[in-house]
Amino acid sequence: MIQMEQWNGFEGRLWKEEVNVRDFIQNNYKPYDGDASFLAGPTESTRLLWEELKKLQKEERAKNGVLDMDTDVVSTLTSHGPGYINESLKDREQVVGLQTDKPLKRAFMPFGGIRMAEEACTCNGYTPSPVLHKFFTEYHTTHNQGVFDTYTPEIKKARHNKIITGLPDTYGRGRIVGDYRRVALYGIDFLIAMKEEDYDHCGYGSMRDDIIRQREELAQQIRALKQMKEMAALYGFDISQPARNAKEAVQWLYFGYLAAIKTQNGAAMSVGRISTFLDIYIQRDLDAGILTEEEAQELIDHLTMKFRMVKFARIPSYYQLFSGDPVWATLEVAGMGQDGRSMVTRTDYRFLHTLENMGPSPEPNLTVLYSSRLPKQFKDYASYISIETSSIQYENDDVMRPIWGDDYSICCCVSATQTGKEMQFFGARANLAKCLLYAINGGVDEKTKEQVGPESRPVTSEYLDYDEVMHKFDSMMSWLAGLYVNALNLIQYMHDKYYYEAALMALIDTDVRRTFATGIAGFSHVVDSLSAIKYAKVKTIRDENGIVVDYETIGDFPRYGNDDDRADDIAVWLLHTFMKKLKQHHTYRDAEPTTSILTITSNVVYGKATGSLPDGRKAGEPLSPGANPSYGAEQNGLLASLNSVAKLPYEWALDGISNTQTIHPDALGHEGEERIENLTHILDGYFTLGGHHLNVNVFGVEKLIDAMEHPEKEEYANFTIRVSGYAVKFIDLTKEQQLDVISRTCHGKM
Amino acid sequence: MIQMEQWNGFEGRLWKEEVNVRDFIQNNYKPYDGDASFLAGPTESTRLLWEELKKLQKEERAKNGVLDMDTDVVSTLTSHGPGYINESLKDREQVVGLQTDKPLKRAFMPFGGIRMAEEACTCNGYTPSPVLHKFFTEYHTTHNQGVFDTYTPEIKKARHNKIITGLPDTYGRGRIVGDYRRVALYGIDFLIAMKEEDYDHCGYGSMRDDIIRQREELAQQIRALKQMKEMAALYGFDISQPARNAKEAVQWLYFGYLAAIKTQNGAAMSVGRISTFLDIYIQRDLDAGILTEEEAQELIDHLTMKFRMVKFARIPSYYQLFSGDPVWATLEVAGMGQDGRSMVTRTDYRFLHTLENMGPSPEPNLTVLYSSRLPKQFKDYASYISIETSSIQYENDDVMRPIWGDDYSICCCVSATQTGKEMQFFGARANLAKCLLYAINGGVDEKTKEQVGPESRPVTSEYLDYDEVMHKFDSMMSWLAGLYVNALNLIQYMHDKYYYEAALMALIDTDVRRTFATGIAGFSHVVDSLSAIKYAKVKTIRDENGIVVDYETIGDFPRYGNDDDRADDIAVWLLHTFMKKLKQHHTYRDAEPTTSILTITSNVVYGKATGSLPDGRKAGEPLSPGANPSYGAEQNGLLASLNSVAKLPYEWALDGISNTQTIHPDALGHEGEERIENLTHILDGYFTLGGHHLNVNVFGVEKLIDAMEHPEKEEYANFTIRVSGYAVKFIDLTKEQQLDVISRTCHGKM
Repeated sequence: MIQMEQWNGFEGRLWKEEVNVRDFIQNNYKPYDGDASFLAGPTESTRLLWEELKKLQKEERAKNGVLDMDTDVVSTLTSHGPGYINESLKDREQVVGLQTDKPLKRAFMPFGGIRMAEEACTCNGYTPSPVLHKFFTEYHTTHNQGVFDTYTPEIKKARHNKIITGLPDTYGRGRIVGDYRRVALYGIDFLIAMKEEDYDHCGYGSMRDDIIRQREELAQQIRALKQMKEMAALYGFDISQPARNAKEAVQWLYFGYLAAIKTQNGAAMSVGRISTFLDIYIQRDLDAGILTEEEAQELIDHLTMKFRMVKFARIPSYYQLFSGDPVWATLEVAGMGQDGRSMVTRTDYRFLHTLENMGPSPEPNLTVLYSSRLPKQFKDYASYISIETSSIQYENDDVMRPIWGDDYSICCCVSATQTGKEMQFFGARANLAKCLLYAINGGVDEKTKEQVGPESRPVTSEYLDYDEVMHKFDSMMSWLAGLYVNALNLIQYMHDKYYYEAALMALIDTDVRRTFATGIAGFSHVVDSLSAIKYAKVKTIRDENGIVVDYETIGDFPRYGNDDDRADDIAVWLLHTFMKKLKQHHTYRDAEPTTSILTITSNVVYGKATGSLPDGRKAGEPLSPGANPSYGAEQNGLLASLNSVAKLPYEWALDGISNTQTIHPDALGHEGEERIENLTHILDGYFTLGGHHLNVNVFGVEKLIDAMEHPEKEEYANFTIRVSGYAVKFIDLTKEQQLDVISRTCHGKM
Repeated sequence: MIQMEQWNGFEGRLWKEEVNVRDFIQNNYKPYDGDASFLAGPTESTRLLWEELKKLQKEERAKNGVLDMDTDVVSTLTSHGPGYINESLKDREQVVGLQTDKPLKRAFMPFGGIRMAEEACTCNGYTPSPVLHKFFTEYHTTHNQGVFDTYTPEIKKARHNKIITGLPDTYGRGRIVGDYRRVALYGIDFLIAMKEEDYDHCGYGSMRDDIIRQREELAQQIRALKQMKEMAALYGFDISQPARNAKEAVQWLYFGYLAAIKTQNGAAMSVGRISTFLDIYIQRDLDAGILTEEEAQELIDHLTMKFRMVKFARIPSYYQLFSGDPVWATLEVAGMGQDGRSMVTRTDYRFLHTLENMGPSPEPNLTVLYSSRLPKQFKDYASYISIETSSIQYENDDVMRPIWGDDYSICCCVSATQTGKEMQFFGARANLAKCLLYAINGGVDEKTKEQVGPESRPVTSEYLDYDEVMHKFDSMMSWLAGLYVNALNLIQYMHDKYYYEAALMALIDTDVRRTFATGIAGFSHVVDSLSAIKYAKVKTIRDENGIVVDYETIGDFPRYGNDDDRADDIAVWLLHTFMKKLKQHHTYRDAEPTTSILTITSNVVYGKATGSLPDGRKAGEPLSPGANPSYGAEQNGLLASLNSVAKLPYEWALDGISNTQTIHPDALGHEGEERIENLTHILDGYFTLGGHHLNVNVFGVEKLIDAMEHPEKEEYANFTIRVSGYAVKFIDLTKEQQLDVISRTCHGKM
C-alpha cells in the first residue's frame, strides 16, 4: 500500500493500492443533509472576474459569436503559453488555465477534419494557415478524410438525405469523460507508473492487431500524461504529485479537464461527477481551519467560471444542429451511494449556488442525479434553483445506479458512463420518422425523391393498412439499423486511428468498457402515426409519380403523452424493436450497443428534412425533441405526459431518454415555498415511476415571446432555458428555434 | 470486352476483360532463340547522357557518396517539378523522370521515421527543416514511432543484442513490386475504373475492421493513381490512356516505377519482370517500321540509366548492413512460360546488353530466370556477360515457376513474388548462430552478457553433448521464432498504418496475396557447429561468470559445402525446423509465412555481434553470407559446394536461398568460348539439381586485392562484383567488407 503525505487524514486502503477514486470517495465523503444557509456569496475577486468575463461575452456576441481565433497554431497540450481572463487580474484567479493564450479565443483543431477547421476560420473572417492546409491535406490524414474514404455510396446517400444524421465525422466524437479527479488524488507520476504497468502487461505474447493497437494507445496515453505536466508547468504548477489541499485539488482536476479540451473538440466535453470528490478536500481544509466558506465557494465559482468559458471553433451547419454554442461541460451533483447514503455534500450546494453567485448560465450543464431518497432540503434547494433559473436538469439516479454503479458521470446531455472505467462511441441518431415514410414509399425519400433505402415494394393502396405498414416498417428498420451501425463502425475506427483521445483515455482504466451509442429521432411522431393508422383512417396523398407526400387522417386516435396504453404500448414496442435490430450487428471493438431518445435542438433541422406524417405533422415542421410527446398531443396535463414517457424502459435505452417540459409558474402554485414543494413533488413522482430524465423550465410563453421580440433587454442577456439535453441562452437560438421552443407545450396545469 | 485503338495488333481476350498483364504477354510475345548479333551499340545520346551521369557519379563519390539532398520538401508524387540528367541534353532523354528536381539528389522521406530522415541529412552536412521536424514529431506519427511505441522490452532487447536484425522499423519495408507494366498497357484511367469497381464491391455489408481498412486503402490507391497522372503531366505526358508505342510504353512503365520510388524508401525497390512485356511493344513498332534496332536499344539503355540513378537518403548504420548504396532495382530477364515456350525475347538480350553499352553497374540488379531449357544461345550470352562483368545473378525458374507461375518478379535480392498479385511483408532475419549460443548459455548473450532469451537452464558440462544441445537449441528456436514473428507483426501493422504503399498497391490486385518473409542468418555456422558437437569433441571455454565465450574443437567433423550428407542433413533439418516454428504463430493479416537464407552484406555486421562458435569461427568474424558454406569449409571444389546448397528444399525457403560463388577465370578454361561453355554447364547442373540462386563472380582474388589497394585506377571505377543477393561496386565497400569478400572462397577448381 502506498502512502503519500498529501493523503494525510484520508481513510481507506483499496484506493491506495490501485487507481480507484470511487473507493476514495466512499471512504471519505461526509453526506450533508442540512439546508443552504451556510452558502457564501461571491467574493470581490469573483465579482471582478465575472464582470470581466461578461464584458468579453458581450464583445463576443457583438462579433457574431466569436471573439478571436487561432489560425496557424495546432492546438496541443503545450501549444500555448499561459493565458488569463485578464492579465491585470490574474492573481485573483483561484483556478487558472485557458484553452489558448487568450480568453474565449478558439483553438485551431484540424485532426477531426481540416476542412471543418478551415471553414470555421473563414466563416468568421479569419484566414487559415496555408502551411497547415498543406500538412493536413497532403501528409496527415484527418478523421474526416478517413471516414469519407470509407463511407459507402449507400451510407453517403442516407446521410445526405438525413435518415441518419448528426454523425461525428468532421470533428471529435466527444462523450468521453476522463476521470479528471485522478490528477488531483494521485498526481501524474503515479498515473504514469500505473499505465506503464498496464503497458508491460498488455497482451499475452501474441501480437495480434488488437494487442498492437492497445500497446500503441497506452504509449500515447503515457506521452499525454507527460505533456500534461508540461502544460501545468507553463502555469507554474507541478502536478506530478497529488494535490495537497482543496485549492490544488480544484486546480489539478481542472488541468486534467483542460488537457481534454485542448486536444479534443467533441460535441460534448463533459466534466463529470466531481462535487462529492472535491468536497472531501474542501472539508479537510475547513476542518483544519485553513479554508473559509467564502474561499471554498470562490474555488467552486472560479472553477465554474472556467467551465463557462469553454469554446470550440464550429461551422454554421454545426450550429444548426446544436444551437447556442453548447459544449456539454456536463457536471453532476447529488445521487445516492450503493450503501444507501446520500452523496449530497455541501459542495453539491456550492455548485448549484454558482447560478446565484454569477447568475444563470448554460454551462456547465448542471445535472442533479435525482432520487426521492435525497435529503429533502437538497431536493427543495434544487427545485428552488430550477424555478429561479431554468438552468438545471434532473436524471434518475434510481434507474442508473443499478446499471452504472454510484460513480457514473453524464457524458453528454443525459448519457451515463462509469467514471474512469468506460468510454463511449458516440453515434448521433437515426430518423425513424423518415424510416416509416421510406417503408410506405419503397425506400424513396419523400423530399428528394431519391431511392435511398432498398427498392422494396411500396404501399400502393389509397388507405394505409396497419399490418401492411408494420410489416414494411419492420423491414425498413432492419435495413436502417444495419446501415447505421456500419456507418458508426467506420466512424469510430477512423476516430481511433486519426484522432485518438490520448489525454482523456490516460485518465480512464486501460481495461475500458466501451458502449456504442446509437440514437432515435422522430420518436413520438412514429408512435402517433402508427396509432393513427391503427385507430383512425389514413388516406395517402401522392405526387405525380405516385410517391406519398402527404396524409389525410380521418377520425381520432390515441396519442403518446396522455398516459394511454394504446399509444404508449406502440412507443415501448418501437424502442424495443429498433434496439433489437441494432444489437444484431457487429460493432467496432465489440462495443455494447445502446440507444437513446434525445435530439438536442437538432429536432428542428431533422424536421426540415422530413416529410408529412400520418400523425398530422406537416412536412418541414420540427420533430418533437427527444422522447417528448408531440406538440399539441398532450391533452391531459403534465402528469399524464410524464407518465407516458416514464413507461419507456430505461434498460432498453441506456444512452438516455430525454424529456423537456415547461411549466408555467402559476401551475406550480402561488408563491415560493408552494412552488418548490410542488416541483419537488413532481420530480419525486416522475422518477419513482422510472422516468429517466427531465429538463425543467419554469416560465410562461409570454416571457419567451417578449425575449424573442426584445432581445436587447438586460434581463434577457443571460436568460437561460433548458432544451433537449442542455441549457441555452434563449437569445442565442435562431429565430426558427425560438419559434419551435415557443410552440412547445407549456403546461398550465398539472 | 474493351477495345482501345492503342491495342491495335495485340491478340487475346481475357486481358481486355480484366487487368491481366500475364495474359497479354502470353498472347502476344514472340520467343527469340537467335544469337546476340542483332544488338546495337550505344547511340550518340546514350553516350552523352551516360558520360554526364558518370560525371555526376564521380562528383557524388567525391562528396562522400551524396551529391545533393532535400531538407524541406516532403517527397510526394507531385512534390517536385520536372528534373533531367542535364537540362541542356534533356531532349536526348528518351525516358524522363527523376525522384527529385535534380539528378542524384536525394529526397526527404519522413514517413518511415523522422529521426532517420533527419540523421541522413545531418550526417551529410545538411540541416533538416525545423517545421517538418515539428510536424512529424508533434502532429504526425511515423512508422518508426509507431513501432517503438509498441515494441516490448523483450523485443527491444533482442533487437539491441542483434539476435533479430535488420528489421525495417525506421524506413520503408520495400519488397513490394507494383505491376508497372499496367500503366503502359491500360493507362491510368482504366486502372482507376477497375479499382473503383473493387471499392464498390469491398465487403459484404458488415463494416468490420478488415473491411474498413481495405476500403480506406483502396481510396488511397485511387488517389495515388490520380496523382500519378499529375506527376506525369509535370513532364508533359498524359498517361490516362494506354501507351501507343514502344517509347510511350517504356515511359509509362517508368512513371509507374517513379511513383513508387518517390513515395517509398524501402531497402529494396524492385522493377520487376518487364523485358518480355516491353518486347511486345518494341516488336510491334519494329514490324511497323516506325522503330529501328538502334532506337529500341536506346530506349532500353535510357530506361536502364534511370534505374542506375535511383537513390535514397540513408544513415551510417544502414550502410553497415547494406553496403554500396544498393536499392535493389531488381529486373528479370528470361524464364520459361507454363506452356513450355521460352520467354526470352530480343529485349532480354537488350537489357543484358546495357552492361556492354554503358559498362558494368550494380543497378538495376539484373537477374536471369534460369532453366536448362532456355535457348542455348541466350544461356551462353548470359554466361558471357557474367564472365565479362560479374554483374548478373541467376535464379532457378524451374523451382519457382511451379510455385509462383510464369509472371513472378524478384522483389528484392532473390525473393519471388507474383507480379501484380502479391505483396510481401519484409522481415529481415533471425540470427540462428546466436540462438545456438543462447541455448548453450541459458539465454544469456555471449557478447553483452545480458539475459536476452528465457532464463533456461544453461549447459554446465565441460564438453558439449549433442542431444542436450539439440534439446536446448530446439527450445531456444521456439522462443526466437515467436518473438521474431511478433516483432514483425507489429512492424507490418505500423507500416500499413503510417506508411502504406498506396502508389505501389494501386498497381497490384485488390485481392492480394500476402507473404510474411522471415529470414535466417548464420546458417552454415549452425550446421557446422552442430556437426562438430556430433562428430568431434567440443570443449567449452568459460568466462569468470561461467558464460561460455569460446570453444575448443578437437578432431575433424563433416562440414556443409562438401556434398557430405552427414552435414547437409543437419542443414536440411535446421531449415525445416525453424520454418515449422515460424508457422506456429499468428501472422499479421494472416500472411503466409516464408523464410529465406540470405544476408546481403550484413553478414559482416551480424558476425561482429556474434560470439565464437563450435565450428571454429571466432567471435566477431563475419558470418558466411546467405546459404553459402563457411569460408574455408569447402574442400571438394565448386561442384561439391553447389551440390550441398542444392539439397536445401526451395519449398521450405520460398523467400529464397542465396548462394554467392567466385570462380577464377582459369578454372573455367583457357579462353572465351570454353569458359562460356563451362559456366553454362555449371549453371545447368546446379539448377537441375534444384539449387535456387547463384551469384556468379568471375575473377581472381589478386584482382580484388589490387582494387582494394588501388581504388583510384580507372579500371576499378565501375568494377562490379556480386555479393549476397546484389551487385556492388567493389570500391564502394568498406575496408572490412572488402576483406570479407577477399576471404571468401574463390574456386580455382571445379
